[in-house]
Amino acid sequence: MISKIYHLPVQIYYEDTDHSGVVYHANFLKYFERAREHVIGTAELVRLWKEEGIGFAVYKADLHYSEGVEFGELIDIRTTYEFDSEYRMVWHHEAWRKGGKKFAVSCELHLVCLDRNKKLRPIPPLDI
Amino acid sequence: MISKIYHLPVQIYYEDTDHSGVVYHANFLKYFERAREHVIGTAELVRLWKEEGIGFAVYKADLHYSEGVEFGELIDIRTTYEFDSEYRMVWHHEAWRKGGKKFAVSCELHLVCLDRNKKLRPIPPLDI
Amino acid sequence: MISKIYHLPVQIYYEDTDHSGVVYHANFLKYFERAREHVIGTAELVRLWKEEGIGFAVYKADLHYSEGVEFGELIDIRTTYEFDSEYRMVWHHEAWRKGGKKFAVSCELHLVCLDRNKKLRPIPPLDI
Amino acid sequence: MISKIYHLPVQIYYEDTDHSGVVYHANFLKYFERAREHVIGTAELVRLWKEEGIGFAVYKADLHYSEGVEFGELIDIRTTYEFDSEYRMVWHHEAWRKGGKKFAVSCELHLVCLDRNKKLRPIPPLDI
Repeated sequence: MISKIYHLPVQIYYEDTDHSGVVYHANFLKYFERAREHVIGTAELVRLWKEEGIGFAVYKADLHYSEGVEFGELIDIRTTYEFDSEYRMVWHHEAWRKGGKKFAVSCELHLVCLDRNKKLRPIPPLDI
Repeated sequence: MISKIYHLPVQIYYEDTDHSGVVYHANFLKYFERAREHVIGTAELVRLWKEEGIGFAVYKADLHYSEGVEFGELIDIRTTYEFDSEYRMVWHHEAWRKGGKKFAVSCELHLVCLDRNKKLRPIPPLDI
Repeated sequence: MISKIYHLPVQIYYEDTDHSGVVYHANFLKYFERAREHVIGTAELVRLWKEEGIGFAVYKADLHYSEGVEFGELIDIRTTYEFDSEYRMVWHHEAWRKGGKKFAVSCELHLVCLDRNKKLRPIPPLDI
Repeated sequence: MISKIYHLPVQIYYEDTDHSGVVYHANFLKYFERAREHVIGTAELVRLWKEEGIGFAVYKADLHYSEGVEFGELIDIRTTYEFDSEYRMVWHHEAWRKGGKKFAVSCELHLVCLDRNKKLRPIPPLDI
């Protein structure tokens, strides 16, 4: 079952671009992670890490780049997720430019949970 | 004459921290630049760059680090500026943790304007 | 026809890690790009950009993460490429830890060429 | 007593630049930190962190920017250090472009040591 669509606005600053004039390709993975952190909640991520020793790790990420995004734009990160198994969440992210007819960048990303010894753990119950 | 205090909230994500557990020191320069971009306005920065070929460049930055900032925190970037001459803006930035008794990081930063040939230009009139 | 394997050593610094203790996932895209720049040659990339107005853009990137990489490690980025068509280069990157039995991270990445108007252009002849 | 001059070559990649065409100002703090890590030794930094719970933290950094550095350049990071007290190392970094008549960027940086509770500790004996 796929979740509702979550929206996160991301402002593009100098730091985000490279000398080609558009956002550096790796940075979209940052925006998508910010989106996931807002869905799960940073307070809960901190609690899981400090109290239970559980962290999330990216296992797989498939990115498609359709259009460049420029300095000064305010983009909309659209995010959904689903549980693939008790060990894996599948996230769908899209970065949309204002007035865009399709996404500028999309990503399917698989997330797993690891304990402090980097052993796989089931995804804990999340209040989302 | 020193400007009013501008505030910019900055959420600390995974990308911001390093393996010591706190925000990587160089990243505060990013947050301070984001703050300046909000004060000047990204639309105006884009216009100056595209239409007039004028960009801002950092000439000097003096940073003091007083306290580490951790993953999940929401910090407040407090910013003021003044004109030192027609060629130089002096910015004062501070990063404050919630409930902090003093800044976690502060910065005095000098900004100049350059044209496309990297020649010094007077600061253009800014609607701020 | 797949190229020979190119090797690029990458030292992992504080800046590369996050508070979970391992390299931040997005950074591998940086290391893979560094590897491509060494294969094509930065001087040639500069020349193409300045003289012909041609730049490379990532069109697709499929990443698999198998193991975390820690601060202080020296990893080996192994890279091959092939031409998929006159418009597309397909790159295979792997990040290997010292003594590793398999890659820590792998990536299949599609690269295209764009002119200054972001229009698709054939890959120029490369002396590689 | 000031140390000898240490040299670290740094290649400027896409990731290092921003849309103004030159290296993003915050990135020089990264290059300077890489230089310090090579002087102290990453193996020793790892050992101090894991075995003794001691990490280095930046306390103060004064940066001067004199010239932009472009994509594709190979710059030379020149580094010296001295002990200001048993609690503080003062580092002097300069980034030099090939054939440059003065530094492009310079930095005076104060480094202290913290334990796992973020308490100040004397700088441990370093084999440098």
